[in-house]
Amino acid sequence: MGTISKALEMLDLFSRTRPEIGLSEFVRLTGRDKATVHRHLTSLQQNGFVEQNPTSRAYRLGPAILRLSALRETTHPLRSVVRPIVTEFAKSIGELAHVSILQGKALSPVCFSDPRVHGTQIAFDESEMLPLHATSSGLAVLAFAPPALLKAAIKPPLTAYTPKTLCDPEALAQTLTEVRGAGLSLCEGSFDIEVTSMAAPLFDSTGAVIGALAVAMPQGRADAEKLAALRAPLLAAGKAITLSLGGIAPKA
Amino acid sequence: MGTISKALEMLDLFSRTRPEIGLSEFVRLTGRDKATVHRHLTSLQQNGFVEQNPTSRAYRLGPAILRLSALRETTHPLRSVVRPIVTEFAKSIGELAHVSILQGKALSPVCFSDPRVHGTQIAFDESEMLPLHATSSGLAVLAFAPPALLKAAIKPPLTAYTPKTLCDPEALAQTLTEVRGAGLSLCEGSFDIEVTSMAAPLFDSTGAVIGALAVAMPQGRADAEKLAALRAPLLAAGKAITLSLGGIAPKA
Repeated sequence: MGTISKALEMLDLFSRTRPEIGLSEFVRLTGRDKATVHRHLTSLQQNGFVEQNPTSRAYRLGPAILRLSALRETTHPLRSVVRPIVTEFAKSIGELAHVSILQGKALSPVCFSDPRVHGTQIAFDESEMLPLHATSSGLAVLAFAPPALLKAAIKPPLTAYTPKTLCDPEALAQTLTEVRGAGLSLCEGSFDIEVTSMAAPLFDSTGAVIGALAVAMPQGRADAEKLAALRAPLLAAGKAITLSLGGIAPKA
Repeated sequence: MGTISKALEMLDLFSRTRPEIGLSEFVRLTGRDKATVHRHLTSLQQNGFVEQNPTSRAYRLGPAILRLSALRETTHPLRSVVRPIVTEFAKSIGELAHVSILQGKALSPVCFSDPRVHGTQIAFDESEMLPLHATSSGLAVLAFAPPALLKAAIKPPLTAYTPKTLCDPEALAQTLTEVRGAGLSLCEGSFDIEVTSMAAPLFDSTGAVIGALAVAMPQGRADAEKLAALRAPLLAAGKAITLSLGGIAPKA
């Protein structure tokens, strides 16, 4: 891996549960020596991608990220376009909905909405990348992905997040054929054993798949009747997002 | 400059007026050879910091930035805390207000609000870094900055953005003494010849200066009476932001 990627991947170590990371924790998490880690952090800090907590000296994500995200949203609106549709959709079905978009060989969350009408809810972490082979969003994307991405994404060995994760390329290919036919995907416990999710693909202006809209719920209330009732609204909301982004869905 | 900084600085080339940049334009803007630029872009793309327009193949800021900014706002809210105060302040005074925070030796815009009640307005570009010696925000920060930052920021040669930019270290030092006394700074045409701005410093929980709240207006309506009337509300709004961020202002 190149120096730039090594430095940028350090940013992915931050999460909701780990918002600040000290130098020695970076050393432990990356498995690199202290001098290298410090040099990378200094470059990231000079460019505003991390900053230090003035009290603890631990690192957290920096102000450059806010400025760049505001610029991206101004010049290429995604979150601001997608959020109202996701919020309305989540409210209408009474379950958590989220949109994520392709970033390399995984999906990067863009926004989520949880109407919080039930006694149990999904702990959605918008800082966590979603693997393609183990999530409904990922399967919805893979079903419409170009061959090169598909090949790279289902190449063994695949991580089994739960005993129900599909890790066999042939079983995955069979599932993807079904997803293509239905226009949406279903995962029951394949990423988190307690979570059932359904997803619909999203497309850009060239008809290429760019991400997915998904519904996620505790498996305890995801019975057959509920899942059947979700299909039409999920497909409709997915199409609405594709259209609002100037995208076009491929001909069925 | 190290490889990481070279790559990250390419992200700063994007702006409102330049939301997408092709490979050859990157080569021209950076003055580096095509192979190097392409290698850097590939690393940035693999990590989601840029993506390619599917039609033109030009690069734009990527989805990782959205994910990381959402994470930073969740774990270390800044924009969401600051924005309502800035919006209310801008509305109350009828002029554009903005907050920017220190990033290295410049200020990075966090948010701005323009009530748009006048026939002329400021073209504020939230992707543009603000130089410390030439802007009211910068002078407000420098007046309370630690000696090392001050020394680095006013070291000649300084860029003269307009004929009115203060570039002489002694004149700057004199101005900063006045700013420290008044608790706010005034710039008339020193960054953009047509713009007058006033700014108040913002402080963190250790009492260190972290940025500034500024008002910017076309110089044509920034007469002495107006500027005098802005002082008290600007100081009050600056204190409100410092407090809402858990910060403390130094003793006067």
